[in-house]
Amino acid sequence: MIKKVLIANRGEIALRVARTCRELGIATVAAHSSADRDSAVVSFADESVQIGPGPSRDSYLNIPAVVEAARIRGADAVHPGYGFLSENPDFAEICAAEGLTFIGPPAEVMARLGDKAVARRIMSEAGLPLLPGSRDTPDHPEQAAQVAAEIGYPVIIKAAAGGGGRGMSVVHDPDGFERAYRHTRSTAQAVFGDGRLYVERYLASARHVEVQVLADAHGAAVHLGARDCSLQRRHQKLVEETPAPALPAEIVEPLCAAAVRGTLASGYVGAGTFEFLVDGEGRFYFMEVNCRLQVEHPVTEMVTGLDLVAEQIRIAAGEPLGYGQDDVDPRGVSIECRINAEDPRRDFAPAPGSLTEFTVPAGPFVRVDTHAAPGYRIPAYYDSLVAKVVVWAPDRPRALARMRRALDELHADGPGVVTTTGFLRELLDHPRFVAAEHDTVLIESLTR
Amino acid sequence: MIKKVLIANRGEIALRVARTCRELGIATVAAHSSADRDSAVVSFADESVQIGPGPSRDSYLNIPAVVEAARIRGADAVHPGYGFLSENPDFAEICAAEGLTFIGPPAEVMARLGDKAVARRIMSEAGLPLLPGSRDTPDHPEQAAQVAAEIGYPVIIKAAAGGGGRGMSVVHDPDGFERAYRHTRSTAQAVFGDGRLYVERYLASARHVEVQVLADAHGAAVHLGARDCSLQRRHQKLVEETPAPALPAEIVEPLCAAAVRGTLASGYVGAGTFEFLVDGEGRFYFMEVNCRLQVEHPVTEMVTGLDLVAEQIRIAAGEPLGYGQDDVDPRGVSIECRINAEDPRRDFAPAPGSLTEFTVPAGPFVRVDTHAAPGYRIPAYYDSLVAKVVVWAPDRPRALARMRRALDELHADGPGVVTTTGFLRELLDHPRFVAAEHDTVLIESLTR
Repeated sequence: MIKKVLIANRGEIALRVARTCRELGIATVAAHSSADRDSAVVSFADESVQIGPGPSRDSYLNIPAVVEAARIRGADAVHPGYGFLSENPDFAEICAAEGLTFIGPPAEVMARLGDKAVARRIMSEAGLPLLPGSRDTPDHPEQAAQVAAEIGYPVIIKAAAGGGGRGMSVVHDPDGFERAYRHTRSTAQAVFGDGRLYVERYLASARHVEVQVLADAHGAAVHLGARDCSLQRRHQKLVEETPAPALPAEIVEPLCAAAVRGTLASGYVGAGTFEFLVDGEGRFYFMEVNCRLQVEHPVTEMVTGLDLVAEQIRIAAGEPLGYGQDDVDPRGVSIECRINAEDPRRDFAPAPGSLTEFTVPAGPFVRVDTHAAPGYRIPAYYDSLVAKVVVWAPDRPRALARMRRALDELHADGPGVVTTTGFLRELLDHPRFVAAEHDTVLIESLTR
Repeated sequence: MIKKVLIANRGEIALRVARTCRELGIATVAAHSSADRDSAVVSFADESVQIGPGPSRDSYLNIPAVVEAARIRGADAVHPGYGFLSENPDFAEICAAEGLTFIGPPAEVMARLGDKAVARRIMSEAGLPLLPGSRDTPDHPEQAAQVAAEIGYPVIIKAAAGGGGRGMSVVHDPDGFERAYRHTRSTAQAVFGDGRLYVERYLASARHVEVQVLADAHGAAVHLGARDCSLQRRHQKLVEETPAPALPAEIVEPLCAAAVRGTLASGYVGAGTFEFLVDGEGRFYFMEVNCRLQVEHPVTEMVTGLDLVAEQIRIAAGEPLGYGQDDVDPRGVSIECRINAEDPRRDFAPAPGSLTEFTVPAGPFVRVDTHAAPGYRIPAYYDSLVAKVVVWAPDRPRALARMRRALDELHADGPGVVTTTGFLRELLDHPRFVAAEHDTVLIESLTR
């Protein structure tokens, strides 16, 4: 039994986790930076503790500070949310060593899957299709260039330790390869402290389709269907939906089955996400596993009726899933739009500030996850997510109509504040998105 | 095709109707009193028109003003919401005569079912079980007393034209009968302009269970399951849920089937509600039909995934339902709590005022229908409903936990303002409600 959870995160996800804990009768401690001392989760949680100044490395990424806060407040578990320490195997391991239940997969599983080259090997052995690429992380640019020549251009160079859309370079011809390789390696070394790279074929036009999985510590695993997250800007998702539209059962079913196979093969425990690319011919390729709750998890909740945070907590406490694949019965369509404080006309540059006006939509089948409110000052230290607008409807046309209505209701304004609301609202009318013919480069083509 | 709807109502329901119209691509006109000129629906709707001063009789009940507003604004349909003119057959008839689509059942059906004595006769002929009572409306107290003696005390005297919990008297013995009869007749005459009364057996302890039905103009009808609305104060519902808890299928199924039978027998078209009482032995008795959308319709939406206002509009436009009973597949449990500006410690006396603080809950599977916001001044002219908090969960224990969490998040405060939030929050922990052993007199027993 988990009795008190320290929430090692901020923003909407910290509040969202706290709400579920409250429903489960679990006490909460909001661990927050000094910049977040007036945030919603701090007033919502049963207790709060300041873990350091604004910059993430001094607070939300400061492992000793987080662990010490949990110890002092008598928490018996830690929920890492997404980002920050959520996929850090050292953190998971230290929590375990300190007797804290880490609400996420075991450290060793996270370490294996966090190394994308290792993850590729595990999944390949489990029979998941991969894009042609280096089996390992070539030590020298010449070796890597040789792999690139074999698989054919364009290729993408990726950091083995990468994530969040950073440490990736697309190369279109052999001439540019070595320069791109060296540049990506320096970035990877600087950002992730790990300069290892691998090379794979680059799909210029593809759908980003991911599968939510749940696995307990007793060997049971299910998938909760597929999400389409193709609408991205610089590998950051802006709009997500489930089920993946215009993807027939003969593609989705093997894709979801592959994710469950990979879950079991990797010894995964908890909530995780298998990311795939689907090409124009409907072939799918495993990309990576996200060892945490995703930002876009609410769309899966809306169609399955599950509370994924509650499932994470139950699994971390050692409970069996208690249901099988046949009991998961997704219904209808759910779409999420991420409202970021960014200026689409200035290449999505962060546009934080104080919200003098903040009105969120409501009504049937509309859910808004946000930590913001009128008067909230968006700190410049963190990512620019202000709110997630999520809708559900029996079918995609009605879900789109509902999302349009919802975005029309959303008003966020204040000195310096610009949001992606208007951009997303236009995107909802884009013929290719309406027809579910969008791909991962649609947004780039619009904003170029 | 309906192109522009005049919304002849106010508060949360006016906004709720406008949201659905927006999603359907239908323009809206908010018809409002001068007291409501700053209300949420007035800014939300495409157009607005003031139909008179604050008191209902001068605005929301003023048929010529409403019809004229629709004519001037070029509306082709009228949505009456609930209360006010929603069950007024004259209004429905005048709309029809003016070429306006009335979004509700046909005037003649409404007239028949609005006369509770006639409704009892129709439903009795359709085979619905009734409580023992007068077949008609006895003209003299002596005749009525004779009926009462035959069916046995306690009895309830009801106005044939009654509704909304008014025009009813419970009589426990013959001595008090004549006085109660004369008093109820004067009330009925004064409130409804119709002094006709009928008498039926009074069930001291019963569950109030109602069935939501939908019927199109082409003879198709379905039910959307049963709602328990037993938690009432002076016949006003405070908490509603679906499905009706602790009511086995062998009671619910015939009860729902009876509602569909009554729907077809009365020629009903649109969304309607069949109200029943269920006694301690699981026997059910038809009470009345509500010829409109109910306040508590969201709980049915949450489990069925349907938008009942969209269904009303489709049906009013002459579209066929397009699905059958087998396609209706309710899932999980939904509960609604009505947040009224009333003081439970002062016998639920209205406690309106200005909301200096108004924070509503959010998060997974929580829906709040409200027209209020910080700074909103609750007018004293109208009913005291400030917000409806609705939750969904896969089962009742989780729905109750979610509702407790949601009510804990709700904060409404301001000079003069008192709400039912705290009272409802305590009710959610009452052992009889938690065990689903509550009945229609539980709240009375708590507040007496």
